[in-house]
Amino acid sequence: MLTALEKAGILVEALPYIKKFYGKTVIIKYGGHAMINEQLKQAVLTDAVLMKFVGMHPVIVHGGGPEITGMLKRVGKVSEFVGGLRVTDRETMEIVEMVLVGKINKDIVALINRFGGRAVGLCGKDAGLFKAVKKPGTLRLPDGSTQEVDIGFVGDISRVNPQIVVNLIGEGYIPVIAPVAVGDGGESYNVNADYAAGKLAEALKADKFINLTDVEGILRDRNDLSSLISTLHVDEVPELIRQGIIDGGMIPKVECCIEAIKGGVPQAHILDGRVQHSILLEVFTDQGVGTMVVS
Amino acid sequence: MLTALEKAGILVEALPYIKKFYGKTVIIKYGGHAMINEQLKQAVLTDAVLMKFVGMHPVIVHGGGPEITGMLKRVGKVSEFVGGLRVTDRETMEIVEMVLVGKINKDIVALINRFGGRAVGLCGKDAGLFKAVKKPGTLRLPDGSTQEVDIGFVGDISRVNPQIVVNLIGEGYIPVIAPVAVGDGGESYNVNADYAAGKLAEALKADKFINLTDVEGILRDRNDLSSLISTLHVDEVPELIRQGIIDGGMIPKVECCIEAIKGGVPQAHILDGRVQHSILLEVFTDQGVGTMVVS
Amino acid sequence: MLTALEKAGILVEALPYIKKFYGKTVIIKYGGHAMINEQLKQAVLTDAVLMKFVGMHPVIVHGGGPEITGMLKRVGKVSEFVGGLRVTDRETMEIVEMVLVGKINKDIVALINRFGGRAVGLCGKDAGLFKAVKKPGTLRLPDGSTQEVDIGFVGDISRVNPQIVVNLIGEGYIPVIAPVAVGDGGESYNVNADYAAGKLAEALKADKFINLTDVEGILRDRNDLSSLISTLHVDEVPELIRQGIIDGGMIPKVECCIEAIKGGVPQAHILDGRVQHSILLEVFTDQGVGTMVVS
Amino acid sequence: MLTALEKAGILVEALPYIKKFYGKTVIIKYGGHAMINEQLKQAVLTDAVLMKFVGMHPVIVHGGGPEITGMLKRVGKVSEFVGGLRVTDRETMEIVEMVLVGKINKDIVALINRFGGRAVGLCGKDAGLFKAVKKPGTLRLPDGSTQEVDIGFVGDISRVNPQIVVNLIGEGYIPVIAPVAVGDGGESYNVNADYAAGKLAEALKADKFINLTDVEGILRDRNDLSSLISTLHVDEVPELIRQGIIDGGMIPKVECCIEAIKGGVPQAHILDGRVQHSILLEVFTDQGVGTMVVS
Amino acid sequence: MLTALEKAGILVEALPYIKKFYGKTVIIKYGGHAMINEQLKQAVLTDAVLMKFVGMHPVIVHGGGPEITGMLKRVGKVSEFVGGLRVTDRETMEIVEMVLVGKINKDIVALINRFGGRAVGLCGKDAGLFKAVKKPGTLRLPDGSTQEVDIGFVGDISRVNPQIVVNLIGEGYIPVIAPVAVGDGGESYNVNADYAAGKLAEALKADKFINLTDVEGILRDRNDLSSLISTLHVDEVPELIRQGIIDGGMIPKVECCIEAIKGGVPQAHILDGRVQHSILLEVFTDQGVGTMVVS
Amino acid sequence: MLTALEKAGILVEALPYIKKFYGKTVIIKYGGHAMINEQLKQAVLTDAVLMKFVGMHPVIVHGGGPEITGMLKRVGKVSEFVGGLRVTDRETMEIVEMVLVGKINKDIVALINRFGGRAVGLCGKDAGLFKAVKKPGTLRLPDGSTQEVDIGFVGDISRVNPQIVVNLIGEGYIPVIAPVAVGDGGESYNVNADYAAGKLAEALKADKFINLTDVEGILRDRNDLSSLISTLHVDEVPELIRQGIIDGGMIPKVECCIEAIKGGVPQAHILDGRVQHSILLEVFTDQGVGTMVVS
Repeated sequence: MLTALEKAGILVEALPYIKKFYGKTVIIKYGGHAMINEQLKQAVLTDAVLMKFVGMHPVIVHGGGPEITGMLKRVGKVSEFVGGLRVTDRETMEIVEMVLVGKINKDIVALINRFGGRAVGLCGKDAGLFKAVKKPGTLRLPDGSTQEVDIGFVGDISRVNPQIVVNLIGEGYIPVIAPVAVGDGGESYNVNADYAAGKLAEALKADKFINLTDVEGILRDRNDLSSLISTLHVDEVPELIRQGIIDGGMIPKVECCIEAIKGGVPQAHILDGRVQHSILLEVFTDQGVGTMVVS
Repeated sequence: MLTALEKAGILVEALPYIKKFYGKTVIIKYGGHAMINEQLKQAVLTDAVLMKFVGMHPVIVHGGGPEITGMLKRVGKVSEFVGGLRVTDRETMEIVEMVLVGKINKDIVALINRFGGRAVGLCGKDAGLFKAVKKPGTLRLPDGSTQEVDIGFVGDISRVNPQIVVNLIGEGYIPVIAPVAVGDGGESYNVNADYAAGKLAEALKADKFINLTDVEGILRDRNDLSSLISTLHVDEVPELIRQGIIDGGMIPKVECCIEAIKGGVPQAHILDGRVQHSILLEVFTDQGVGTMVVS
Repeated sequence: MLTALEKAGILVEALPYIKKFYGKTVIIKYGGHAMINEQLKQAVLTDAVLMKFVGMHPVIVHGGGPEITGMLKRVGKVSEFVGGLRVTDRETMEIVEMVLVGKINKDIVALINRFGGRAVGLCGKDAGLFKAVKKPGTLRLPDGSTQEVDIGFVGDISRVNPQIVVNLIGEGYIPVIAPVAVGDGGESYNVNADYAAGKLAEALKADKFINLTDVEGILRDRNDLSSLISTLHVDEVPELIRQGIIDGGMIPKVECCIEAIKGGVPQAHILDGRVQHSILLEVFTDQGVGTMVVS
Repeated sequence: MLTALEKAGILVEALPYIKKFYGKTVIIKYGGHAMINEQLKQAVLTDAVLMKFVGMHPVIVHGGGPEITGMLKRVGKVSEFVGGLRVTDRETMEIVEMVLVGKINKDIVALINRFGGRAVGLCGKDAGLFKAVKKPGTLRLPDGSTQEVDIGFVGDISRVNPQIVVNLIGEGYIPVIAPVAVGDGGESYNVNADYAAGKLAEALKADKFINLTDVEGILRDRNDLSSLISTLHVDEVPELIRQGIIDGGMIPKVECCIEAIKGGVPQAHILDGRVQHSILLEVFTDQGVGTMVVS
Repeated sequence: MLTALEKAGILVEALPYIKKFYGKTVIIKYGGHAMINEQLKQAVLTDAVLMKFVGMHPVIVHGGGPEITGMLKRVGKVSEFVGGLRVTDRETMEIVEMVLVGKINKDIVALINRFGGRAVGLCGKDAGLFKAVKKPGTLRLPDGSTQEVDIGFVGDISRVNPQIVVNLIGEGYIPVIAPVAVGDGGESYNVNADYAAGKLAEALKADKFINLTDVEGILRDRNDLSSLISTLHVDEVPELIRQGIIDGGMIPKVECCIEAIKGGVPQAHILDGRVQHSILLEVFTDQGVGTMVVS
Repeated sequence: MLTALEKAGILVEALPYIKKFYGKTVIIKYGGHAMINEQLKQAVLTDAVLMKFVGMHPVIVHGGGPEITGMLKRVGKVSEFVGGLRVTDRETMEIVEMVLVGKINKDIVALINRFGGRAVGLCGKDAGLFKAVKKPGTLRLPDGSTQEVDIGFVGDISRVNPQIVVNLIGEGYIPVIAPVAVGDGGESYNVNADYAAGKLAEALKADKFINLTDVEGILRDRNDLSSLISTLHVDEVPELIRQGIIDGGMIPKVECCIEAIKGGVPQAHILDGRVQHSILLEVFTDQGVGTMVVS
């Protein structure tokens, strides 16, 4: 049991970090385990509220997850996948959007508000935040060749208009954003949350981009936690991909870190969302958690 | 065919109305036919954009409608009704919220933006806009007596915090609001859109409250359109209810007009949403449409 | 007779134009018939008020006209003209200034205010808006040679200080400006209203410069209205002058359009002020009226 | 000859007065000799510029004078007077307005600007500054009875909208105002400059109202300059009028001082405009000049 | 040894307190041991910096202490005391002021700045912050009677002009204030720091007034720490003084708490400055430290 | 004896100078006789207050002088000097700081406030205004060689953070600054007031830098007052130093003028502080006083 004095001492220890990030904008890509596990969820969102109160400007971009699959199941919809992307017909898109925007997004908003923050939930349609164009699907055929196929309402973000986010930050709100974008014809597109977060970080010229994942960070040897790469330079990445050290689902996560950095964000982080308060640890202590990508 | 000059003349005719409502806040309860019919929908939302550009501050509070029933059906959920209110268990509430917030709300937002406005979609959870308490259901028993029953997540708005709406208006956005409120425990409540709109009009000290309905207004004789009551004084209402002239679904619509007026809103209107551009007609011409309730 | 609905439809048609010019500054050179004919006068000034209410910033620079001649006559003053310019002795200048500033200017102001705008009348003396230097007169002698003669208080604008206009616009007023400028010694100069308007457009970096004239625009064949040049590029002008297609009083009107455009104003228009609401037609419809000069 | 040091000493002497009036609004009714004599004119307007630079907010309301008569003569117009008021037909009003607004007003503006101030000339039409209603003329008949007669465009100020003056002051300008007001039908009215200045002082809640006259102030004995009443209490006035000590043209001057004071202006002064820099003497020294009216 | 996670947890624990005091102004009377002991000093000033960064507005009013005595000794000055007050001749006052303002005050400022805050040191002379009048000394004679004596430059604060403190707070500075006030003749007065802090709390309508002392708070039984009075109501005080429970140096400390509370400060605290981070404990934890005085 | 009118005339004479310096920032290095002689002192500080009221922004940087020596004597401290610099051990520095910051600085502040200004006293520690590094002493040995020696807490300004001065100016205060700077370890340094003032002028991009000295300015022939150099170009200085015309204590004064000018200050003045109101004479009259250094 800690005494009150010891607790006070720990608050004082955080002071240099509070100073360092005072007034800074931090984009948090929120997904994976940290969205499912109740305790982790509360930890992440409390962290965001705390960041706001000590003068930082957190912005949350969340992913989808099992709830989408659950809902699709409930309406008897079976999804096909092409190249890891869900083939998204109009009905599927409708379900995806309702779950992302009408359920997950507002649940996060309500929780933040319960923890004392003032959150506002947005999707890419609000004030034209995310514009998208249709993304082509690539089907790998048995003979090794590829064929372009229509995978429906899956989009690539073509334009970010961050004004509404800037306004909300300026008035003390925590924006919470669902990865749904809008096409020129007003149609909805499902967009990858990692890329959406990275693009937003770039458009906002954010000071930090944090990607909460379900891994410890990037390991040189997947079986050896001590091989964690603490700091990764953008130009080391191609070689690491070639060697297969960065592969699979980690590639898009690293790619959007790189894009954010090239767009002017000084630091991008791949953090382990399974560790409670990993954002706080990254921001408020010297404890190395996960991998930091820098230019 | 009108000449350009005739068109210009008509713009000039609108000038006195534009002046009159310059800088005024107008709450529009948007529901019924005007939400279903494509042409009416476009007319209502274009009207809102036009109002914004000529210096007014429209705020839209929308209802639900057939899409909720459709979605409940799709997941095989059958609703019971008590005293006209849907018994709303947790699963039903989840569907209601997803459809209202994740589909209807953002569809309106996207349309407004296509028409050149800058809309932002909110629900009562955002920035604590609408707080609610559980509403008791009243079951009328065969012997004429009544019994209080639990009808689930149906709520009465207990507190309105309009700050986020004020902020968005101030920055040139058109707020679009879904009638979902949040309880003290963070749980969602389905709230009546008419009341939500009226309460918001009151909290914002709006200058006008427009309720789009599927009737011509209040008729003294239901079968005689010429018996329309153009101006209704708040204190005439009890007698009209007693006489059955105001009854059924019109009662809550009139009640929330009265509440808004008592809360300081100078004018409340029951307009016929089935008439194209009925809002514009009300605001920009002398043409009497529907019933205006005043104190 | 139009129904209210048809009228509403026409308001909606104006929406794209309202959006396009929202927040834009438009300099209107107001002169000719449109200043004399009561109906045209009301139309022009109502147009300006309407523009203001829908978010544009009209600025009116007016000319003189028959009232100056009438007043000079009343005091028994006969004017001589040299090269189309009135020889302006001190007494004449006094009359010119009194009529322009004390009568025409304030009449326009009063009318705008009656139509619901908030106009403020200025001349070039106010807050040092227009500084001028003496303009030399050029007398063409019978033998074809020319001789420079003193034509009195006729000036060329040498410096524009638009601060007062910027201030008034920012506070919601419609500035109405008489073409009188001030010399270094405090003496008044009569300046050409077309040039004054063009110079002001340039100094304000206006978005549009409209010159109301008594012609349909620039016609390739003066006798054929169908030969109207809708869009005129700045570099086509010298050839058109050489061919005599642009000549006489049209030359200064085109020249000050060119100067405004070279100074950064994107569009300059020569409109037919004899057509009612021609400004509105230009701004709020696709109807081509007059000639637009662009770079 | 003063040394530079002595001059510096005098500047320092002014410091307490500068402090005392810092940020204060002072209405100056400018008329009489001080408008005709070149040297006095320069002194008054330099005083106003100096006041502005040391942090005060002077506002000038000027009268008419011999120039109106001169101009009427030039156009062969003979005026009749009823009860001291010029019978003002439409043509006379036109001349009056042109001279006041187009000549006298802008001459003052130009002079102030030459002395380094930034003046803007207004009349009651600008931004609806002065509204007026027709003033009835009272004709005294030979038998001692009176008869109400129409004296044309002579008005009483019925409403002051000082917003434009407030705006101009706030942006560092010196407003210069001609005593012309506008009727409900847009017609011009000649209004008494003393009353106009007093009404404006009241509407602006000015800190000081200075009326420049052609007398030393109010004397108990007209033939004895030493009988000057330095401080006059509002409630002493009726008795002084009864005794004939205040009479003739001094009555309206005292009356508008009283009205200003009753409207909240703490001090009203009747100063001798024939004394050079009398405003400066009043404001920046302890030297008693003229009569101060207080509540 | 705490893990990083445990530390993060403690930060999160502070969140409710951070929220509670966000934007609040807290006056800290800083004196006693906490000014002498290096470790306590660092703790107090770090606490202030931390408070500032998490959104509170701390203002420090410090006392004097042994350094004054040391300096007086160095210049060979022996002080007499009357009724507990140092008889302060001009030379003594000079030393007192130099030590308070030129040494202690700026040492605190420099330390805060080293800890990352932005402090500005003031005394009562700056911008007329504290005005004082001479305080009479009361000498108790051997026969029990009292005699008023001149004790020199010891003052009572007669007027607080907190504008400079408000300005500095608004721009993000931490004001640090020495208890020296200025008389009408410009002479310096030594004023009691407790009262100065209380008066300032009152003038600023502060949200909290903290008095750091060298006792645990107010004990019912001086020999029993467990008899600490946690919450003391203003109206209980007279009886406690009568009983001798509050006596000696504690009386002025309680009195200025009462004055602050009567002046509108909701909470006043007597904290034990000998406990490290006692301010932080009071503000950021539920741990009861010292005595809170409330109305 | 001057009449009031003559006095008014002199105020009017100052108008062009008031206009010229309106809104300008002027750094005044205040030292020498003007700090000792009561009458001169009052003159300098009244001048500063007057400057503030007529729209200029004076900032005072003061030196030390006899009071430091007096206080050191009182505590029995004897100072050694190396190369004209006082060897400043910790105890000496403590005395120096107390006298500069706790006595001289606040005495100036109190006087300005008595004269109606609103002054705030600062030293280099406040808000990190002046950072310093230790200055090496250079001892000249009998054999003509030099040796670097430790002269204690004598510093060179290494960084100026003028934000607090900018803030105070913006809110209408007159900043008064003592030449004490702070080292990286929080230790105090005595810095040369001339350099401090020059550096501050540079950091603020001041419009004028005035150095009050005890000489008439720079004389070509020390014995001939008529040989005063009124305007000195920066590039003439080296030759004048070579010729010995600028030497001794004048060298640093000229050097910091040069530094200010090179840093963007347009004019630097060496004025005779023994002449009453010499600042006013420089600013408000054409009278040449002292030497103006320009680029």
